[in-house]
Amino acid sequence: MPLSIGQQASLRRTISETDIVLFAGISGDTNPVHLDDLAAQDSPFGKRIAHGILSAGLISAVIGTRLPGPGTIYLNQTLAFRRPVYIGDTLTATVEVQALRPDKPIATLRTVVTNQAAEVVIEGEAIVRLPS
Amino acid sequence: MPLSIGQQASLRRTISETDIVLFAGISGDTNPVHLDDLAAQDSPFGKRIAHGILSAGLISAVIGTRLPGPGTIYLNQTLAFRRPVYIGDTLTATVEVQALRPDKPIATLRTVVTNQAAEVVIEGEAIVRLPS
Amino acid sequence: MPLSIGQQASLRRTISETDIVLFAGISGDTNPVHLDDLAAQDSPFGKRIAHGILSAGLISAVIGTRLPGPGTIYLNQTLAFRRPVYIGDTLTATVEVQALRPDKPIATLRTVVTNQAAEVVIEGEAIVRLPS
Amino acid sequence: MPLSIGQQASLRRTISETDIVLFAGISGDTNPVHLDDLAAQDSPFGKRIAHGILSAGLISAVIGTRLPGPGTIYLNQTLAFRRPVYIGDTLTATVEVQALRPDKPIATLRTVVTNQAAEVVIEGEAIVRLPS
Repeated sequence: MPLSIGQQASLRRTISETDIVLFAGISGDTNPVHLDDLAAQDSPFGKRIAHGILSAGLISAVIGTRLPGPGTIYLNQTLAFRRPVYIGDTLTATVEVQALRPDKPIATLRTVVTNQAAEVVIEGEAIVRLPS
Repeated sequence: MPLSIGQQASLRRTISETDIVLFAGISGDTNPVHLDDLAAQDSPFGKRIAHGILSAGLISAVIGTRLPGPGTIYLNQTLAFRRPVYIGDTLTATVEVQALRPDKPIATLRTVVTNQAAEVVIEGEAIVRLPS
Repeated sequence: MPLSIGQQASLRRTISETDIVLFAGISGDTNPVHLDDLAAQDSPFGKRIAHGILSAGLISAVIGTRLPGPGTIYLNQTLAFRRPVYIGDTLTATVEVQALRPDKPIATLRTVVTNQAAEVVIEGEAIVRLPS
Repeated sequence: MPLSIGQQASLRRTISETDIVLFAGISGDTNPVHLDDLAAQDSPFGKRIAHGILSAGLISAVIGTRLPGPGTIYLNQTLAFRRPVYIGDTLTATVEVQALRPDKPIATLRTVVTNQAAEVVIEGEAIVRLPS
């Protein structure tokens, strides 16, 4: 079934301390604001926050499993980090088809992550090659 | 010590199957090209590849631990995924200061990830608020 | 959309050493046949095998994400472990609707896990309460 | 020392959010009732629950490490999921020898998992080949 402009899909997930610890381990991003309660208390955020790229993973999950889904090839992603994500926040990543190239199987997707208060935490755009 | 244009820092790391399995778990991105040998053999890549956002985590690690380092706040990241990353590839993420706002503690960084063959796998740009 | 008898869904995944190490950690099942190369060489299997309950997790994944999907409540599962699963095996879990209670939202599902050689590694039956 | 009818062994463990996040990752079972606080609040359980198969892992741990212990081969397991398991619950899995085949090294085990309130959360039966 071909994609159409405006088509949407979402995934929702609660961010746990486990996610942050594991992401720190596999990325090597051990910035104290993610792992050190005392440093985080002295930061502008007041408590530990999730890595921005970890939250961006939920966009990747929608693209890779829902829309366009398995077989999609990621070409480009822009990410504007608008607000911090705290342990226990429940994030929704939403992907919406914005443009489809007439000549090639390439789509532009609007990608937004919001928290449980419906505040935008990340927004941006992805360009993907569609599965054949 | 204030940052200067052209200043650089890097981190290097071998991507393991464990990294991919854990990233799939914490992101929910279970796209078969990352987790299913048979699907990956039938894909354009011929074998399983790492999630693009996982490789981008190495950029986050340089920014959060080296340059500008702890206390940096991530505002923006663009990611162009140029080549696939396979299990066992050794990636180097390099961050270079490209511009510094005269009025605010905000820097633009060029961010590049290369593999062991010195091929670019990701390139892009980050905008960050510098630690005070 | 109501379920119908004979309806099927599947998921496929390659079993990694990471999966086994993590499952040993979260279950506490440190049986040497899963974690100790030397013990495994002396076992009837000749090399390390995955935990049977780990492979059964792939059935849970189909039930919880595909058929019947989110909201399903697991009531019962029988598991006959037919063959060992080795590191690197690619498993397919298939769930098929076998019976639907006329009076209650309860379904009986046939659940089979096969390997890349199409050999049955687990077979059994699940009973689930359908999402409302 | 040969097994005797009525012989028992147990293991106890507190179920953490980490266990659930890791099991979701290695199984692919990302059913929102396990990972999404908001969906879980709207479910019959009111909050996030552990995967049934994760709790069954504790039975596997008793069988693989205590009774009958290392070298046991799992042939069969039935699981009736009686009550939900919440984050922070402390589970006890108990295995009791119920029957021993006179002709073959095969035992039938009664397998029960209870919570800190002594409520049964899983009950069932295992059939195993005894270590030689």
